[in-house]
Amino acid sequence: MKLIADNLRITKPKIQAALLALDPEPLQDLVRQCVAKQAFAIDVNTGPLGKSPEEGMRFFIEAVQMVTDLPLLIDTSNSDAMRAGLEAAKNPVMINGFSLEPEKLEKILPLAKEFDADIVGFLLYPDSRVPKNEAERFEIALELIGQAEAAGVAKERVIIDPVVPPLAWDDGIVQARAVLKVIQMLPDLLGFDVQTIGGISNLTTGAGDKDKKNLMEQSYLAMLAAAGLSFALMDILNPDLVKAARASGILTKEEIFSWAMVPRG
Amino acid sequence: MKLIADNLRITKPKIQAALLALDPEPLQDLVRQCVAKQAFAIDVNTGPLGKSPEEGMRFFIEAVQMVTDLPLLIDTSNSDAMRAGLEAAKNPVMINGFSLEPEKLEKILPLAKEFDADIVGFLLYPDSRVPKNEAERFEIALELIGQAEAAGVAKERVIIDPVVPPLAWDDGIVQARAVLKVIQMLPDLLGFDVQTIGGISNLTTGAGDKDKKNLMEQSYLAMLAAAGLSFALMDILNPDLVKAARASGILTKEEIFSWAMVPRG
Repeated sequence: MKLIADNLRITKPKIQAALLALDPEPLQDLVRQCVAKQAFAIDVNTGPLGKSPEEGMRFFIEAVQMVTDLPLLIDTSNSDAMRAGLEAAKNPVMINGFSLEPEKLEKILPLAKEFDADIVGFLLYPDSRVPKNEAERFEIALELIGQAEAAGVAKERVIIDPVVPPLAWDDGIVQARAVLKVIQMLPDLLGFDVQTIGGISNLTTGAGDKDKKNLMEQSYLAMLAAAGLSFALMDILNPDLVKAARASGILTKEEIFSWAMVPRG
Repeated sequence: MKLIADNLRITKPKIQAALLALDPEPLQDLVRQCVAKQAFAIDVNTGPLGKSPEEGMRFFIEAVQMVTDLPLLIDTSNSDAMRAGLEAAKNPVMINGFSLEPEKLEKILPLAKEFDADIVGFLLYPDSRVPKNEAERFEIALELIGQAEAAGVAKERVIIDPVVPPLAWDDGIVQARAVLKVIQMLPDLLGFDVQTIGGISNLTTGAGDKDKKNLMEQSYLAMLAAAGLSFALMDILNPDLVKAARASGILTKEEIFSWAMVPRG
């Protein structure tokens, strides 16, 4: 399980202010911290970027690339911003992401072929509804892979995001468990070693108490690792969460074990 | 996942001294602490009890029963001690446990029928070797259930212990993962909702650093919960471990979720 930093996101006031001022320093400071925590990649969550999506995205990508060579996930629903990001990117990139929503199929998915990039595919209905059980999730996964291949994107380039649900939903626990089962069973169902990604902080969206959030996220991370999750998109600056993720990663690897590998608690 | 305290064990010097002096207070003090942490049951690990197994076991069981009505696991390999414990028990009891070892089949297993008790069955070869993969574990589970039924013990009374391996073994991680898969698949394989038990502290046997041990045990507990473990035999006085177990338990229950259920981190 590789850890991807979700820390660089436009919803943070400091990052919004940096974009307005076109000041790269706050972004770069954050990215340096993520690199120091040995993130595998950085999710660059710019949002749709309003009236000047290309300029905004170029600012983001160029600022980040000045301080790291790590892979970048370009995380926007705006296809103009996505194209600008892919054009500006020198680091390895993943498109984050597409779904069965018609506009995404039409405008985002083809960019994966054009730019020869990996692309995240969300297990969501075309109208962005969340599927209600495992069977529905499997159907959507098959449809996503089919759409990718029809667009000339090899199925191995699609990274499935089963969409971790907030526990605060009425059926949050049931859906969280369905996500685990889907991650575990997808490779058999699809017939190849499909990669998967999960956004950990979604689990505790809306919940207040930080200690409790930590506890639930740590447990769920271990379960995701055991289910075979490829990429955990998470707060890489949360040391408790990172320690739990690394310990879980060790338990799921076919490696010679040494206590030296375990992070200090 | 129900939590069983493994804290009352003869290997602790205080407990050894209490047995020698026939002083119930140290045992009772420990048990009161376990009860306060809401253990589901108490494992009474007396060891073989040397020259006076019956007297020793009666001392243990009577001391414990004076302070709690919780179910007790009688944890000894000595069949004379086991019988004395079952005779002395007023609380609900489980026999912990039997294996395919001839002496256990002959002398321990029949006690489950005679005393109408649940019994833990270890996934071990007759010579106490640990099986090397999932297929071997499934064969042993079938053989254990077969032996129980031949001895007049209903299969539903057998609680399978797949024997959590120490990570310090060369193939510890691989075996730890095999144990998870066995727990998950046993109900389908056996065709009924078989109960399972796992001793968590085995995982970090021999390892020194307490923080690291905690971290690995917490992650593995979450994975065991997700696999469907019925009973976690563990240090109920370790608050980090208990919080992780309760959080993992919440994630695996078909219940309305409330943040109030999550222990504070």
